[in-house]
Amino acid sequence: MPETKIPYKIYLNENEIPTKWYNMRADMKNKPAPLLNPGTLKPMTAEDLAPVFCDELIAQELNDTDAYIDIPEEIQDFYKMYRPSPLIRAYFLEKALDTPAKIYYKFEGNNTSGSHKLNSAIAQAYYAKKQGLKGVTTETGAGQWGTALSMACSYFDLDCKVYMVKVSYEQKPFRREVMRTYGASVTPSPSETTQIGKKILAEHPGTTGSLGCAISEAVEVAVSTEGYRYVLGSVLNQVLLHQSVIGLEAKAALDKYGVKPDIIIGCAGGGSNLGGLISPFMGEKLRGEADYRIIAVEPASCPSFTRGKFAYDFCDTGMVCPLAKMYTLGSGFIPSANHAGGLRYHGMSSTLSQLYHDGYMEATSVEQTSVFEAAEKFARVEGILPAPESSHAIRVAIDEALKCKETGEEKTILFGLTGTGYFDMVAYEKYNDGVMTDYIPTDEDLEKGFAGLPKVDL
Amino acid sequence: MPETKIPYKIYLNENEIPTKWYNMRADMKNKPAPLLNPGTLKPMTAEDLAPVFCDELIAQELNDTDAYIDIPEEIQDFYKMYRPSPLIRAYFLEKALDTPAKIYYKFEGNNTSGSHKLNSAIAQAYYAKKQGLKGVTTETGAGQWGTALSMACSYFDLDCKVYMVKVSYEQKPFRREVMRTYGASVTPSPSETTQIGKKILAEHPGTTGSLGCAISEAVEVAVSTEGYRYVLGSVLNQVLLHQSVIGLEAKAALDKYGVKPDIIIGCAGGGSNLGGLISPFMGEKLRGEADYRIIAVEPASCPSFTRGKFAYDFCDTGMVCPLAKMYTLGSGFIPSANHAGGLRYHGMSSTLSQLYHDGYMEATSVEQTSVFEAAEKFARVEGILPAPESSHAIRVAIDEALKCKETGEEKTILFGLTGTGYFDMVAYEKYNDGVMTDYIPTDEDLEKGFAGLPKVDL
Repeated sequence: MPETKIPYKIYLNENEIPTKWYNMRADMKNKPAPLLNPGTLKPMTAEDLAPVFCDELIAQELNDTDAYIDIPEEIQDFYKMYRPSPLIRAYFLEKALDTPAKIYYKFEGNNTSGSHKLNSAIAQAYYAKKQGLKGVTTETGAGQWGTALSMACSYFDLDCKVYMVKVSYEQKPFRREVMRTYGASVTPSPSETTQIGKKILAEHPGTTGSLGCAISEAVEVAVSTEGYRYVLGSVLNQVLLHQSVIGLEAKAALDKYGVKPDIIIGCAGGGSNLGGLISPFMGEKLRGEADYRIIAVEPASCPSFTRGKFAYDFCDTGMVCPLAKMYTLGSGFIPSANHAGGLRYHGMSSTLSQLYHDGYMEATSVEQTSVFEAAEKFARVEGILPAPESSHAIRVAIDEALKCKETGEEKTILFGLTGTGYFDMVAYEKYNDGVMTDYIPTDEDLEKGFAGLPKVDL
Repeated sequence: MPETKIPYKIYLNENEIPTKWYNMRADMKNKPAPLLNPGTLKPMTAEDLAPVFCDELIAQELNDTDAYIDIPEEIQDFYKMYRPSPLIRAYFLEKALDTPAKIYYKFEGNNTSGSHKLNSAIAQAYYAKKQGLKGVTTETGAGQWGTALSMACSYFDLDCKVYMVKVSYEQKPFRREVMRTYGASVTPSPSETTQIGKKILAEHPGTTGSLGCAISEAVEVAVSTEGYRYVLGSVLNQVLLHQSVIGLEAKAALDKYGVKPDIIIGCAGGGSNLGGLISPFMGEKLRGEADYRIIAVEPASCPSFTRGKFAYDFCDTGMVCPLAKMYTLGSGFIPSANHAGGLRYHGMSSTLSQLYHDGYMEATSVEQTSVFEAAEKFARVEGILPAPESSHAIRVAIDEALKCKETGEEKTILFGLTGTGYFDMVAYEKYNDGVMTDYIPTDEDLEKGFAGLPKVDL
């Protein structure tokens, strides 16, 4: 191993865990467009949002002026359960690639939810409890968010109702069981427990569900049950705010050793991990204090940034949620059945969409067999079996490191390793058996999704 | 949370990872009895053992005089991939129990193998590689050891053949898939690939396998294939030696804060985790420098310490392995089918057996529903979903902490949290559904196992 003063893993001390979240929007000249009321198509007020979301979270959602927001002490306590997360120098990977690049990754998978989702789950559960609510509802796809929310609700003794995309519910019984162990109720979506679920089942009897559909069900239950609100694990501004803890820790760890990344890479589904990881770096970039190359990586089978439209769209299939202006494939878009893992949402965080639109970051898409190839290589040399989602970032980090090998450049690469793949072994099995396939939607496929975009004039 | 200077997680620095393993046997007055040749019933020499084990590992197995053995640099490097492991102060659990006890646990689950087994796997793979071998064979039950060995072999580019107890192979396809991702071949045992497997299948056509049987198959393949040796994940002296890294780190972390445990608790199957955790503490006890209450916890359904005989016995069902003097239930003993998780080996480490026999430690047994009750409580408050095995130690740690609550004593409890339960959700599901049962073997059940003990006069 190379001689260096930088350890394999940089752990901050407990008292260096951030005590404030950083709100990128405060430093953006072009703010993300407001959410629209799906009925009136007018910007939503806090009052409009109150039946759906917790009050304090609405305030955070609408706050695009305060750069820093205090993390309540109770949440700081909970963060100490599993944070700070390590910033890992990928010495083993660098050696395997024989690259002059210096690779770092922020690993968010060392907690039972298996991903970064817990950072926002605990915040959302805290504000729900503080408001005196009985419980929350949500959807989950791959299951990481549902698991994280179950853990958070268990901690604050809140009821937790999870609508799990049916195909995941059936393929991932163990994820479901972890949620049950933390006391959550888990319902496969679409279900007969909601009006929208019944409607979707009547129209598409064999459907295996989608995130957009599960969102509709969870929202319906929240607004129709006293003492309940809906919570969401990605896409929203508030979630990126909570996830800024990832980037703040990563930057503090790098700063300790005087390291400045040249390239920052994150996988992008709804944008929560990417938004969190890049936050403080993007802040510097927005304020003109530093420059970084920032790359969002998405699946070629669900290419909202790289092939989507920047437009107002519904956040859910049932069209009960507010509309958001974002890069979107249309709320009816569902990735092909061979797509493994998460990153299957039709849209993208409004904040990231605006930043991408304004040229502050790049985006690229990768095919899943090449993603799993990178995942396996990484697992073998770095000892961590990555989640399929996280492996999108690994793929591009490896590609960039290999470019450095060609050019001889000693670039510093930072990527987000959002989670572990312990519950994704069905996908790994397909890859190991050589039967995993790729799928890239045709332009015609995408046109069908775009056809459902609402017409909005502002 | 209480005000204190002791953080939630104590991480040693990378340069504080031990560079020597500690060998308890050097400080034992009554040494563990030697392994016997199953043919001649005479103590085995290094030469006798050479067809089965790697040369350097044989030297470690037979070495009961050197207190410290250098950890080769290559293994130290690998340790940096996932070590030091955190020593966690269980503030959340203490609060939930409302106990004056101070509870610490050494958490070995934050690596892809999901347990402490990697500590020995990498050492055994290293010595196999150093000897120029092509590969190794082994058995695995719950799957942690097989996964750990797969990772280690992948790192050193060694072939890895795993015989997995058939019932686990079928119930834990995901464990199997992790091993395959790391390049191992996994065969359900008993199998048609060995003579002993064929014999067992002929005699017991419907058998779901046992560890003892899988060991026989793995040993047969090792001794009959050029360039292969057999490796074992527990029971052996060498394994306890490698696992001493757990206790050495735990003690170093406690010493940093001037903390001395009153009670040390570990689960015990073959004894590798317990032996590793207690090593440096037991060393002080053996040398008369300090006293600790040390408790081994085993399943009531496989009670080798608490109800077994201290006698020479076969280590495997096929009786091809050396005999060891140990607490044993007889090599034909198989825990009842309702027993979940690991800790199902019929015997126990010779070293720990001798220490227990000589009164240096206690043992207790617990029933599995109470184990899972403790596991769920722990998961909810400490945020880590524990392995069923580890949860045996949690159960007794909680019981001891509750005793402190009654007496008001502020005892310091240290226990080993060997791993995570992500691959054990079938067992958790049974518990969540309220259909988990307990089983305690009758005296008659045990007599059947004892009847198979070999007659050895030394």
